[in-house]
Amino acid sequence: MPIDLIAFDADDTLWHNERHYQQAQRDLCDLLAPYADADAVNARLYEAEKRNLPLFGYGMKGFTLSMIEAAIALTDGQVRGTDVQAIIDLGKRLVQTPVELLPGAAETVEALAQHYPLMLLTKGDLMDQERKIAGSGLARHFDAVEIVSDKTPGTYASLLATHGVDPAGFLMVGNSLRSDVLPVVEIGGRAVYIPYHVTWVHEQAPEPGEGDTRYHTLERIDELPALVAELDGAS
Amino acid sequence: MPIDLIAFDADDTLWHNERHYQQAQRDLCDLLAPYADADAVNARLYEAEKRNLPLFGYGMKGFTLSMIEAAIALTDGQVRGTDVQAIIDLGKRLVQTPVELLPGAAETVEALAQHYPLMLLTKGDLMDQERKIAGSGLARHFDAVEIVSDKTPGTYASLLATHGVDPAGFLMVGNSLRSDVLPVVEIGGRAVYIPYHVTWVHEQAPEPGEGDTRYHTLERIDELPALVAELDGAS
Repeated sequence: MPIDLIAFDADDTLWHNERHYQQAQRDLCDLLAPYADADAVNARLYEAEKRNLPLFGYGMKGFTLSMIEAAIALTDGQVRGTDVQAIIDLGKRLVQTPVELLPGAAETVEALAQHYPLMLLTKGDLMDQERKIAGSGLARHFDAVEIVSDKTPGTYASLLATHGVDPAGFLMVGNSLRSDVLPVVEIGGRAVYIPYHVTWVHEQAPEPGEGDTRYHTLERIDELPALVAELDGAS
Repeated sequence: MPIDLIAFDADDTLWHNERHYQQAQRDLCDLLAPYADADAVNARLYEAEKRNLPLFGYGMKGFTLSMIEAAIALTDGQVRGTDVQAIIDLGKRLVQTPVELLPGAAETVEALAQHYPLMLLTKGDLMDQERKIAGSGLARHFDAVEIVSDKTPGTYASLLATHGVDPAGFLMVGNSLRSDVLPVVEIGGRAVYIPYHVTWVHEQAPEPGEGDTRYHTLERIDELPALVAELDGAS
């Protein structure tokens, strides 16, 4: 089947993200070490994140508010204002960290942009994602940029309808089985899964059955042009 | 000139918003009354909001983080964890408040949708705005929904290009001179200004010159269909 549109996830597909969050989380553990051990901090933080997701959505501001809630809970409300400010500063550091592209990302996007319409399709905080897109230097290669609050089968179906693309001609590239692969396969599209070395536990999902030909796994993004040529040619 | 597309701002144009923020701000003043008077709280909060805007953007999560920073500063870092949790809960209340349409909003949108393509064009937090759009019951009347991080002349020009609409055929309806009127007039579009009874100080701006025929002021949204008919007919 010919490929009409290739969409890329952004965080941990084109540039580093999760490792900055995990660093912030380690710094939170250090900050709260007088009150609780790291396992307890991580467990309480994840619990807060899950609980707050329907209210806050993805992104650094919700993450920061959940870190503060975890700190309040773990200290029985005794956390000091100065520590809360230190936690907010961890969040601010996240949005001030320069964008660092993954190896091969720039070359791959540039090469594919010469032959296919490309979309950047990411979820998270609007402001933060726009900052990273601008800072990546890749914006000019994308025909469309879509920042969504979540990546469900409905999100993909609606976006493809808006852009007039048949799911059969759609290829999604990303590092999350849960967000980039499974919902796309579900609506009849194709997906390329490129795992990042760390994945937020919330994004972890079992792989689809082995026999599923609608998705492919690559180790590195620079293997993508060859795979796309093969998929597109096999029409 | 004929009208090809009418876009509506959302917060305080179609539904109440600012008064919920002002209520949260009054509750913050009550909470911090042992430390500072209301004027000092309001001044310190606005200072934090302005400083954080480039990092956090608009919306309730950035507002909540700024409330917390103001509380830390006003108490010299002595604010208690339980008070910080109370502030976070003020923020959560903001995203859990049911959407309350302004008088005439539903009828006006419904009437205009029969004759014009409509767009909902709002800035703020992605998740929060999606929740309000869904809760408003008006989503089906809009041909497009665009949630942007800021409303500058560049934002409008880029959106209109994407949707293939000439600025001369574009009409923007909103309650903010700064965000809904001035940038639209600047790129050659037309705007309808419908003031809300309270305006966040950050959105306040001087009115354009009296002789400017590119924008019109209405007292109530239900006066809009008659004005649109007049503008569209005067082509």
